[in-house]
Amino acid sequence: MKIASEPKVVVIGGGTGLSVLLKGLKEYTSQLTAVVTVSDDGGSSGRLRAQLGVLPPGDIRSCLVALAETENLMDKVFQHRFLEGDGLKGHSLGNLLLVAMTEITGDFESAIEEVSKVLKVRGKVVPATLEQVVLAASMHDGTTVYGETAIREYPASIERLYLMPDNCQPVPASLNAIAEADAIVVGPGSLYSSIIPNLLVNGLTDAIKASSAATFYISNIMTEQGETDGFTAADHLKVIADHIGVDLFDYMVVNSGKIDLPRLERYLAEKAKPVAPIYEPILDGKVEIIAADLVSDDEVAWHHPDKLARVIIDAIHKLD
Amino acid sequence: MKIASEPKVVVIGGGTGLSVLLKGLKEYTSQLTAVVTVSDDGGSSGRLRAQLGVLPPGDIRSCLVALAETENLMDKVFQHRFLEGDGLKGHSLGNLLLVAMTEITGDFESAIEEVSKVLKVRGKVVPATLEQVVLAASMHDGTTVYGETAIREYPASIERLYLMPDNCQPVPASLNAIAEADAIVVGPGSLYSSIIPNLLVNGLTDAIKASSAATFYISNIMTEQGETDGFTAADHLKVIADHIGVDLFDYMVVNSGKIDLPRLERYLAEKAKPVAPIYEPILDGKVEIIAADLVSDDEVAWHHPDKLARVIIDAIHKLD
Repeated sequence: MKIASEPKVVVIGGGTGLSVLLKGLKEYTSQLTAVVTVSDDGGSSGRLRAQLGVLPPGDIRSCLVALAETENLMDKVFQHRFLEGDGLKGHSLGNLLLVAMTEITGDFESAIEEVSKVLKVRGKVVPATLEQVVLAASMHDGTTVYGETAIREYPASIERLYLMPDNCQPVPASLNAIAEADAIVVGPGSLYSSIIPNLLVNGLTDAIKASSAATFYISNIMTEQGETDGFTAADHLKVIADHIGVDLFDYMVVNSGKIDLPRLERYLAEKAKPVAPIYEPILDGKVEIIAADLVSDDEVAWHHPDKLARVIIDAIHKLD
Repeated sequence: MKIASEPKVVVIGGGTGLSVLLKGLKEYTSQLTAVVTVSDDGGSSGRLRAQLGVLPPGDIRSCLVALAETENLMDKVFQHRFLEGDGLKGHSLGNLLLVAMTEITGDFESAIEEVSKVLKVRGKVVPATLEQVVLAASMHDGTTVYGETAIREYPASIERLYLMPDNCQPVPASLNAIAEADAIVVGPGSLYSSIIPNLLVNGLTDAIKASSAATFYISNIMTEQGETDGFTAADHLKVIADHIGVDLFDYMVVNSGKIDLPRLERYLAEKAKPVAPIYEPILDGKVEIIAADLVSDDEVAWHHPDKLARVIIDAIHKLD
């Protein structure tokens, strides 16, 4: 495969994890497409979705900011959250701007494009689907729970996720980007709320399988309470494969860096532990493991944007 | 006086009238400073002012849009008003953006500057004062009424306006612009809510008197119910002079254009009539009258942006 100096990369996910990855990757390539989950129903996004019938703008907003040039204050404004005001409190200005632009242009995709111009976004941000999807989960206690927030708050663990409607369609821009990509990167991000909902959008997994791109799964650094307690890296991959019915990935990127004690203790308070870099169960498959120190330098145990981006970009260039 | 090809013009006012004037003037000069009233307490501005303690952003927003380049949709977004949503309904996105930017930069003036960059504003928009001022009025029935909205809704007519606090200070940027201006234009705009509140800001009138700029008052085309019923052009000037204690203007621009019957009838329903172009009472003074057809081509009897701007720009160039 002939990789250009700026490889074509599609990243798929949502939440903070995807923003972190985009912040890192944009320094290496402008040929970026972020496919972003739209099943969020909590917080500012959830209120806007419920009250105005729009798609939840929050994860899209974070990705736009991650890819924005920062020569004016618009990226800060976009993330700014109102701390008071009847009905305003909790809303971020970027969410409201995306809603207003959607009302003006008539569709969410055009709104994202227009806002991208204002923020001088490097790359392209695409919602996983333009349909109003609700996440549903069969729990291990036999109950079915509807809605991302309700699923997260439900005490039992998740057996299987669904999207309703299950025939929701992807955006053509994401299918085109996947078809032309040099690399497709899934994660990092919450397994059940940011990763799997994207892959359940009708046709998206097929498009990834059909693409000649190298495929990466970025394992989370920490487990998440109520979602992935006790999960190893291999467990993450297995749950994805169970949901989509195929083995999708050429590479799995795992963290081998140490997390210092003060951070570990803080996470422990939230019942989160480092994801064990155990991948023996998948070594008989075709997944190549890339292990590296990927831990951020600050007080959280998120991925370090540049460490993560470099590992991916290096792997892409080795494909040549 | 030597006037540059792009004369330095300061416009003073608020509301729709000021926006219309700015839209016209920006085609002739980029050396524009708009000094804008901040005594509004109704609508979206009033709610933000009451709930968040910010200065009312509405009139500033309209001026920024009037001076914005329109190559992206940001000017439309800025004017976009939410039609539903708990607490959101009625707010315009531009007002919220100004509030968010104020919270980020820490002051309203910097916020306006930053937003001006995003909108690629031609010229400069400055609040009349950065203090929270309340408009007060002694009415002809002896009552004192507080607040712009309450004054407008009060049945008796206005005898005299005050600003509280009466020692509120202007912004240095407006004093500098006034000192350096070739022309200072007051109006068009609601006499009691957009024009006089600006001129009552401490030191602003003195700065205008001290400036060597030519001074214009743009008389309104129509009277306003409860504010200027039955007023002639000369009455407008007289009320201003009564409030500020000096004769401020070299020129008064009055409309001599006809307003068609359908429009007249619509305005009559709101008890508004054409301002009679009577100025005999002031012809013994030093005010030169410029009469021209200034009526807009659309369905309202506002000023036509270009007709109005051309009259002013022509008069400025005749000063040479």
